[in-house]
Amino acid sequence: MNLLALFEISDQNLNRLAQIPNLTVIKPDDLTPTLMTKIDFIYGWGAVGPRVLEQSKQLKFIQAYSAGVDYFSLDQLAQKRVLLANVSGIHGEPIAETVLAYVLDFTRGIHAAERAQTQSKWVGDELRPTISTLADQKAVIFGTGHIGQQIAKRLQQFSVKTVGVNRHGHPVDYFDQVTKDDHTLDVVRQADFIINIMPLTTATRHFFDDRFFSALAGHQIFINVGRGPSVDTSALIHALDNHQLAGAALDVFEQEPLPADSPLWSMANVLITPHISGGFKEYGDEAFDILMLNLQTYLKSGKLAKNEVNLKAGY
Amino acid sequence: MNLLALFEISDQNLNRLAQIPNLTVIKPDDLTPTLMTKIDFIYGWGAVGPRVLEQSKQLKFIQAYSAGVDYFSLDQLAQKRVLLANVSGIHGEPIAETVLAYVLDFTRGIHAAERAQTQSKWVGDELRPTISTLADQKAVIFGTGHIGQQIAKRLQQFSVKTVGVNRHGHPVDYFDQVTKDDHTLDVVRQADFIINIMPLTTATRHFFDDRFFSALAGHQIFINVGRGPSVDTSALIHALDNHQLAGAALDVFEQEPLPADSPLWSMANVLITPHISGGFKEYGDEAFDILMLNLQTYLKSGKLAKNEVNLKAGY
Repeated sequence: MNLLALFEISDQNLNRLAQIPNLTVIKPDDLTPTLMTKIDFIYGWGAVGPRVLEQSKQLKFIQAYSAGVDYFSLDQLAQKRVLLANVSGIHGEPIAETVLAYVLDFTRGIHAAERAQTQSKWVGDELRPTISTLADQKAVIFGTGHIGQQIAKRLQQFSVKTVGVNRHGHPVDYFDQVTKDDHTLDVVRQADFIINIMPLTTATRHFFDDRFFSALAGHQIFINVGRGPSVDTSALIHALDNHQLAGAALDVFEQEPLPADSPLWSMANVLITPHISGGFKEYGDEAFDILMLNLQTYLKSGKLAKNEVNLKAGY
Repeated sequence: MNLLALFEISDQNLNRLAQIPNLTVIKPDDLTPTLMTKIDFIYGWGAVGPRVLEQSKQLKFIQAYSAGVDYFSLDQLAQKRVLLANVSGIHGEPIAETVLAYVLDFTRGIHAAERAQTQSKWVGDELRPTISTLADQKAVIFGTGHIGQQIAKRLQQFSVKTVGVNRHGHPVDYFDQVTKDDHTLDVVRQADFIINIMPLTTATRHFFDDRFFSALAGHQIFINVGRGPSVDTSALIHALDNHQLAGAALDVFEQEPLPADSPLWSMANVLITPHISGGFKEYGDEAFDILMLNLQTYLKSGKLAKNEVNLKAGY
């Protein structure tokens, strides 16, 4: 059996794979046209993935190394009866920490101070009246899955009121309140922070559009750690330009890398990070642990142990 | 009786003062040479404070609007039997939130991303291997008073190990370990974050010097939210230049405002905020509450209710 490794595997983890009988690890450089048809498992994805899926005759299971799987052709996987798993669960803590950093950067005047630092400017008197503590501020979090819950948990520790938005509106741990995604405009008007962590589906594409931003009161900070295409970028830029939003912290974008000529780069109230919110040094090891578990379970039972994606729902 | 108000008092709070019989509130512009000798109480300090202290014939009590009181001539106050109170207690939460923001800015790659943003640079691949989560990292906090404890409490919520340094080495809430300030070099070598929140006294002036920084392992982040002169600035710059430190977040400086030609402004691994870490919108109201309480208590009993400074210890 052949495992195509499209995400880096450490030597230590390669040794763990070597203990599985009859399994050969194929690296992208070793792929021949013949071998491409004989891949059983794929770890990761990238440019070569779709070609292998197209030509595969025995592909059984793909272990993605991301939580979102919107970049896969899910219909094609369903049709070819290929199982897909994500690595949901490992991003919760790093993304929650990143969101807290964004929030505190704005409330504590640090984002503005760093801008002033680039001009060697001491702006204490200007900043002091604008900064605040987090207690009793309000965050609306779109997406109440594992990552959304970890974000809400951290915010609650700082006495922030947390409102979750999802499709069913049922109570979820760490949220003071949960509302359905068609009842949100009243809720967001009263929010201080609007945080997106929804998966990208046809329902969430351009969810944050002109209509959404127009409903805001102007003091809100918008944070996107979900998926770039959930936001209509032009509408976001328009909202920032017209003070419908006080600021934004963005880790994901409709087009990545964010084009060098995007006006977002130079907007004073925008904080840009390059799709790193879920990263941490041990990411490779934790993602590999999920691959290993799913691989061993599949070889025994033909099923996945963890994180199988519902190909119809898209997450 | 005359209260000289050197820190702004809102109209609402002036109304509260008006209910104290026989109390006149004097603003700096109203000060005449005669009136200067007839001040009973001072709220705040600034340039005119020392002149009033010098000439006062009946000064009884000064309510400072800061936690640190190193800018007072404490000997002179003791000699003239003038009581001094600070506003300790109101800075704990804002400073703790600022410290968390600094820490997360470094661990989550945000400080570096913001630098790259100023050049419209997408540096995800460079940053991802350098970022981490906070769990099991180690912070050494110099100063275990109220603010130090609030910082430690927040860090513990993120599973950071907290070591406190003080003069006695006894256990303190929110610290996993407490050590005496003459046993610190071994402790700081193993730290990820070194945080100063000590008051400025003769014992803490230039506490962080060449000898201190030379003992470090090179991966540490140094954070100063205490007092600027606790740090030998030249030694700090040398440590940053020579990679004895991985970075620094600085809110206070030997000279404030930080001079425009200071090399600190442009160092890539330095985050500068303009002495705002303890600020928040309601600061004036909370400081005034302490003044009001101390004033009322003094008028009844000749004593202060809260936050009296030990003029010998200096805090």
